Amino acid sequence: MSHALTPLSALLVSQMVEAALAEDWGRSGDVTAQAVIPANAKAEAIIRAREPGVVAGLDFAACAFTAAQSGLSMQRFKEDGARIEAGDDIAKISGPAQALLASERVALNFLGHLSGVASQTAKLVDLVAHTSARICDTRKTTPGLRAAEKYAVRAGGGVNHRFGLDDAILIKDNHIAVAGSVSAALHAAQQAAGHMLSIEIEVDTLEQLEEALAAGGKIILLDNMTPDSLRQAVEINQGRAILEASGRVNSDTVVAISETGVDFISVGAITHSAPVLDFGLDIDVKA
Amino acid sequence: MSHALTPLSALLVSQMVEAALAEDWGRSGDVTAQAVIPANAKAEAIIRAREPGVVAGLDFAACAFTAAQSGLSMQRFKEDGARIEAGDDIAKISGPAQALLASERVALNFLGHLSGVASQTAKLVDLVAHTSARICDTRKTTPGLRAAEKYAVRAGGGVNHRFGLDDAILIKDNHIAVAGSVSAALHAAQQAAGHMLSIEIEVDTLEQLEEALAAGGKIILLDNMTPDSLRQAVEINQGRAILEASGRVNSDTVVAISETGVDFISVGAITHSAPVLDFGLDIDVKA
Amino acid sequence: MSHALTPLSALLVSQMVEAALAEDWGRSGDVTAQAVIPANAKAEAIIRAREPGVVAGLDFAACAFTAAQSGLSMQRFKEDGARIEAGDDIAKISGPAQALLASERVALNFLGHLSGVASQTAKLVDLVAHTSARICDTRKTTPGLRAAEKYAVRAGGGVNHRFGLDDAILIKDNHIAVAGSVSAALHAAQQAAGHMLSIEIEVDTLEQLEEALAAGGKIILLDNMTPDSLRQAVEINQGRAILEASGRVNSDTVVAISETGVDFISVGAITHSAPVLDFGLDIDVKA
Amino acid sequence: MSHALTPLSALLVSQMVEAALAEDWGRSGDVTAQAVIPANAKAEAIIRAREPGVVAGLDFAACAFTAAQSGLSMQRFKEDGARIEAGDDIAKISGPAQALLASERVALNFLGHLSGVASQTAKLVDLVAHTSARICDTRKTTPGLRAAEKYAVRAGGGVNHRFGLDDAILIKDNHIAVAGSVSAALHAAQQAAGHMLSIEIEVDTLEQLEEALAAGGKIILLDNMTPDSLRQAVEINQGRAILEASGRVNSDTVVAISETGVDFISVGAITHSAPVLDFGLDIDVKA
Amino acid sequence: MSHALTPLSALLVSQMVEAALAEDWGRSGDVTAQAVIPANAKAEAIIRAREPGVVAGLDFAACAFTAAQSGLSMQRFKEDGARIEAGDDIAKISGPAQALLASERVALNFLGHLSGVASQTAKLVDLVAHTSARICDTRKTTPGLRAAEKYAVRAGGGVNHRFGLDDAILIKDNHIAVAGSVSAALHAAQQAAGHMLSIEIEVDTLEQLEEALAAGGKIILLDNMTPDSLRQAVEINQGRAILEASGRVNSDTVVAISETGVDFISVGAITHSAPVLDFGLDIDVKA
Amino acid sequence: MSHALTPLSALLVSQMVEAALAEDWGRSGDVTAQAVIPANAKAEAIIRAREPGVVAGLDFAACAFTAAQSGLSMQRFKEDGARIEAGDDIAKISGPAQALLASERVALNFLGHLSGVASQTAKLVDLVAHTSARICDTRKTTPGLRAAEKYAVRAGGGVNHRFGLDDAILIKDNHIAVAGSVSAALHAAQQAAGHMLSIEIEVDTLEQLEEALAAGGKIILLDNMTPDSLRQAVEINQGRAILEASGRVNSDTVVAISETGVDFISVGAITHSAPVLDFGLDIDVKA
Repeated sequence: MSHALTPLSALLVSQMVEAALAEDWGRSGDVTAQAVIPANAKAEAIIRAREPGVVAGLDFAACAFTAAQSGLSMQRFKEDGARIEAGDDIAKISGPAQALLASERVALNFLGHLSGVASQTAKLVDLVAHTSARICDTRKTTPGLRAAEKYAVRAGGGVNHRFGLDDAILIKDNHIAVAGSVSAALHAAQQAAGHMLSIEIEVDTLEQLEEALAAGGKIILLDNMTPDSLRQAVEINQGRAILEASGRVNSDTVVAISETGVDFISVGAITHSAPVLDFGLDIDVKA
Repeated sequence: MSHALTPLSALLVSQMVEAALAEDWGRSGDVTAQAVIPANAKAEAIIRAREPGVVAGLDFAACAFTAAQSGLSMQRFKEDGARIEAGDDIAKISGPAQALLASERVALNFLGHLSGVASQTAKLVDLVAHTSARICDTRKTTPGLRAAEKYAVRAGGGVNHRFGLDDAILIKDNHIAVAGSVSAALHAAQQAAGHMLSIEIEVDTLEQLEEALAAGGKIILLDNMTPDSLRQAVEINQGRAILEASGRVNSDTVVAISETGVDFISVGAITHSAPVLDFGLDIDVKA
Repeated sequence: MSHALTPLSALLVSQMVEAALAEDWGRSGDVTAQAVIPANAKAEAIIRAREPGVVAGLDFAACAFTAAQSGLSMQRFKEDGARIEAGDDIAKISGPAQALLASERVALNFLGHLSGVASQTAKLVDLVAHTSARICDTRKTTPGLRAAEKYAVRAGGGVNHRFGLDDAILIKDNHIAVAGSVSAALHAAQQAAGHMLSIEIEVDTLEQLEEALAAGGKIILLDNMTPDSLRQAVEINQGRAILEASGRVNSDTVVAISETGVDFISVGAITHSAPVLDFGLDIDVKA
Repeated sequence: MSHALTPLSALLVSQMVEAALAEDWGRSGDVTAQAVIPANAKAEAIIRAREPGVVAGLDFAACAFTAAQSGLSMQRFKEDGARIEAGDDIAKISGPAQALLASERVALNFLGHLSGVASQTAKLVDLVAHTSARICDTRKTTPGLRAAEKYAVRAGGGVNHRFGLDDAILIKDNHIAVAGSVSAALHAAQQAAGHMLSIEIEVDTLEQLEEALAAGGKIILLDNMTPDSLRQAVEINQGRAILEASGRVNSDTVVAISETGVDFISVGAITHSAPVLDFGLDIDVKA
Repeated sequence: MSHALTPLSALLVSQMVEAALAEDWGRSGDVTAQAVIPANAKAEAIIRAREPGVVAGLDFAACAFTAAQSGLSMQRFKEDGARIEAGDDIAKISGPAQALLASERVALNFLGHLSGVASQTAKLVDLVAHTSARICDTRKTTPGLRAAEKYAVRAGGGVNHRFGLDDAILIKDNHIAVAGSVSAALHAAQQAAGHMLSIEIEVDTLEQLEEALAAGGKIILLDNMTPDSLRQAVEINQGRAILEASGRVNSDTVVAISETGVDFISVGAITHSAPVLDFGLDIDVKA
Repeated sequence: MSHALTPLSALLVSQMVEAALAEDWGRSGDVTAQAVIPANAKAEAIIRAREPGVVAGLDFAACAFTAAQSGLSMQRFKEDGARIEAGDDIAKISGPAQALLASERVALNFLGHLSGVASQTAKLVDLVAHTSARICDTRKTTPGLRAAEKYAVRAGGGVNHRFGLDDAILIKDNHIAVAGSVSAALHAAQQAAGHMLSIEIEVDTLEQLEEALAAGGKIILLDNMTPDSLRQAVEINQGRAILEASGRVNSDTVVAISETGVDFISVGAITHSAPVLDFGLDIDVKA
């Protein structure tokens, strides 16, 4: 990536991590470590990648280990957004053994999930790197984790689509049906929106595309079109609007789509169906 | 499943759904629908499966549609835990069009994610149905969604392992290393735990298994053993302890593992790496 | 207003109102009414305007009266966004007298504050109605009430600028100073932003304006310029970018600014310094 | 002020400030600074008054800048309650430039609003300084900010009336109407209240005042009376009860009211209609 | 009681009850009922007193049973504040058996605890009924339950002292020591407080009492004095100030204290050490 | 105790303490200290036991004193679980006098309540120390304080029963009645539960005990049985199941119950009816 990775706000990270710790610790914390590990035992642990990918979520892991006055510290060997190989050391954690064991799973759950999203994103980003198309996400995210997953998309080299229903207008088929036409829907949106609110409209056909362009559409979503249709759309557009392609995008189809000349390709699967990236934690406890 | 599905508490469901709606609605709600759809427009919508699987999450979808005094109602054609086919109608939602569009994505995000978990679980459950082994989950869940994902595992025919660090003891290799031996760790745990707290101990070798059995271990986790070793473990055990197998379980390996005679097989992938099950929402708006 | 008023999400309204009720009710509620008014007394009350303006906040008032299973109901005679005169009846509330008295102040505090914002906005909107300029708000809002105040700006006929630091880019003098130049700052922002994130850049001089236009700036904030400079800016722009004027805007200066041809005029005072609009509540209690 | 200013609890300050930061930072924080300002850039900034008044809210500003492990520090040149002139330096903030820019608006929104309340209060306090009357506030506060605004009233030299419906009894016209008479209402309240709960009763006429005094009223609110009536009330009272005047109090009317001999004058406008006090932030960024 | 019982705000009750249900239901609710009781089984249950006392907490019980859309309803046979005998039927609950069993313990925990507080209060209230002394509470309450326990004190016929550190001033020995004298401390408080904030001062000797009276003290706490000293204090006071006795008050000592002529007797034990009042729930399930 | 005391998670402690401080500080904090104690006054205080018992809750006290950046520090002379005598010094707190006075009551309320629970537990533990029976708690806890009270039970030498309805199955008479028989209920539970969820069944007669044993019951609750019946139950059991006795257990009855050979004795009174243990705070303020 040629630009710096926009970090998540520390407030958001600590809220999510504290909620996850509460979820895992329940009402009496790590009863196993408390029963078996002496309170004064120290430990060191290395987080190590077990497969190649892109790392994301180190702030979450660090927060999980250092929350609740744990006495732990974490040293990073990689930064979010870095390409990693199986076997790479990612971070070292040192401090009280009980605290380390109590936070291990939450830290790895965040790190694995977000690195999974970043890695799936990066795969598609790499596949389209020879074109001007950029990979972006959708609102098809895991409930409660949207800001984190969208951050991971950025870590993987993708860009973010809108965050929610409130920060941009996206007119879809149902809206058009009610409004009566592409241009009627677009005009209603243009009239309601202030100058800082982006407006995108989804079209299913090249006729709709022409109507959207005529009505002053500046961002147009081409839904479920074949590469041939997309190529025609790019030609019709003549650079007037930003064009985004969506629908059934995966590693088999993304190259052909990207080569049509569209500007953005949005993919739900990078957030809603990314398998975790596998990390291990090798712990050395000194009783 | 021969027994009823244990539902999630309505309090938990509404908390998770309201948080997800807040995440999606942000600071001004669905600006698109508000700009384009008349406030008094009504709509009907059908949630339809686009691929076969097991449905889970209908309480979440219903809650998303009916929250915030939306005026919407939802009628179910399937119940959680049901096997469904592509094209099956799952539920019908009726009421104000703006409200329906504002909740659609959150409802589908929950339904897709949880049905994904249920379906992945069911695949493994089906593969081992000819044995007495049961599929169970782990603490490798998506942060913030553990209770929901564990519910989805039950919907898919699996059973739940412990929910967190607090509701059962699970002694692992690091604990054993600090305690000095399998039996020392087990004794420490037995002494600390009350009579309602289950104790499981992880062993890596058959020697450790024998030591655990001799020390009165009642639930034993056989980690990363080959089917041959598992079979030997079952023989050594002679029905004394409950045996759970774990480590790199997937659809290729699960049958062989299940046929060794172990009682439970725990799988992280059913919660941390399940792709969504695909549902569509066909909306008919009457302006 | 020619388009419908975008409402606030019911979730947000009830959260804000319940927090305000908790703030006013403290630890034992309305001890006066409980001591003096019989529990079974009924009451009717009319909310009446004491000065002309634009009403905003009826959802908040209704929520304050009907929260906490109060048994109250509220009938509206006006809708948010309506122009009202002194003496106009706005709404009627009926039900248990204790509950009505307990919610009166919170309801009026919201209604007065938000109608105050709407009315200040409408004053400026009226003053510039003969031009194409539109009045918009800023991030200079009362802490905790931004979404509500921005809603009131819409009720007053204004449009909303960005909601926070996250939903649009606004490059100011400090950013430009660090980046080295208007064009350097703009390029950095264009590279970082996805296609749905609007980018605005603030310029202080006509030279900066030309640089911004040359660098592809699409939304440009003209800060603290005289009407003469603004008029020159409009000429230079030739319709290429959206132009927003800001700085010391008030009822004395806004007309001259609006007649320069700028598209938007942003005003902090409509949210941060609007006096309340005065409403009275005439209560008729039947013991 | 001859006595120290009672501070707000640090818990309340940090809760309000974190909520305001969350409101402004939304789901991805300050995207502008992150895109344009290098992560390692440092900055220094001076908060400077742009108009004379009384400062209030420095704890809020300090908390906004130092929250979320920002790495920023703030040095104060003034303390809350101080009279300031246009051009006065109020505080200096130093640290990471991105963090400083991300917190600037929230810090100034609190400081401007609370200093506005303090300054409006001080204006009235100054006008009545030659009398024994003291200026106090009401429950007509901005929703969610009551504790902060009442703190600002103290900073401006005023005193606080009750905080909510629960911490003192205030019998008004509606209560009296239901109870049947001033004395009936007062007796009901005296019987219900413990010895630590203050009781005030509102009267509209001198006859009601005499009835209230006869019934043992210790704090009496004289609502909407002319200076002449207030003077008569003071004479009738003969020092028996504490007398508070209220109703349409502003800088034109307050002197005459204060010279009648009443003890307290309550004013809603100092909290509900105070314009912000204007502060600027001059930032010097070192990339 | 000659006056109506001031109820707790419904907002507070539902917040406390939902927190307690969440505490009891944890992450998967009532797994026993879900495993053993059919989902469509109905039940009726009677809450019955197992010992005599004063009932308090029926709003909490009702809320526990009807929360989370349980489908349950509760009919009351007694109201809070009523004297009850062993064997008395208190309320009947009807509806889904699973829901009834899931809420039973939380409902009874509130009812037992709050009725315990009310009953302990009533015992002391009865013992001093032949005098003008009234029993009041302290801030020695169970963390998190102060508003509820103070409500239960009222249900038992007691009156409430201040609710917290913020709603009244209570000057104790440490404050006096720092201020230098009783009168210095009192003057500092009188100067800082507005007219609605009550001021009480604690004295240990009759000399201090005289000093407090001379300094205009209106509410005086006589700490740990013998009945003889209290009687002298009453004589010295001559009705000028309200007198409150405190220190080691219990059923053995309270009569003698009350007969000295003091106005209030404050007792920590009625809130911090009240044993529960025992209630049973007889359930009749119809599968 | 021969094993270490399992601590409460620091997250839980700080949540409970901050809620209790908010409850006590209300909307403007400690107005007395702020009015009377100079802001720069320092103080030292000793927490001293006023009666013998077992201390529990020092983490809560420390958190109350050091929360909200108070500047206070606390040094411990005892640890939770220690037997203490009247007059023992427990801890010393040093720092700003205002902060110390503001936190004193909350710290002592926690310490007194939890030490009360620990001490009541320890009394019973001591009484049965000559047998193999162990004292355990129930779900009859104070709403909102279950985790803290169960911790205090451990500090007193007891063990914890299940924490809520979700972390173990406990089949009672109503469940058995609906299921049709002891064995039917047990089989339903065994089928529904995973291998980590303990199942206990309550029996009222020796016939039910035999049925439960025959059905594979591993943990059996003997409810309200006489010592004679309990002894017979132990004989019938022959070590097959863990036996728990419950019902009307107190210091008069517990010895006889413990000598019957049962493994556990559960007691509601140690949590729901424990009087506080009395502590004093001797403060030395240096103005």
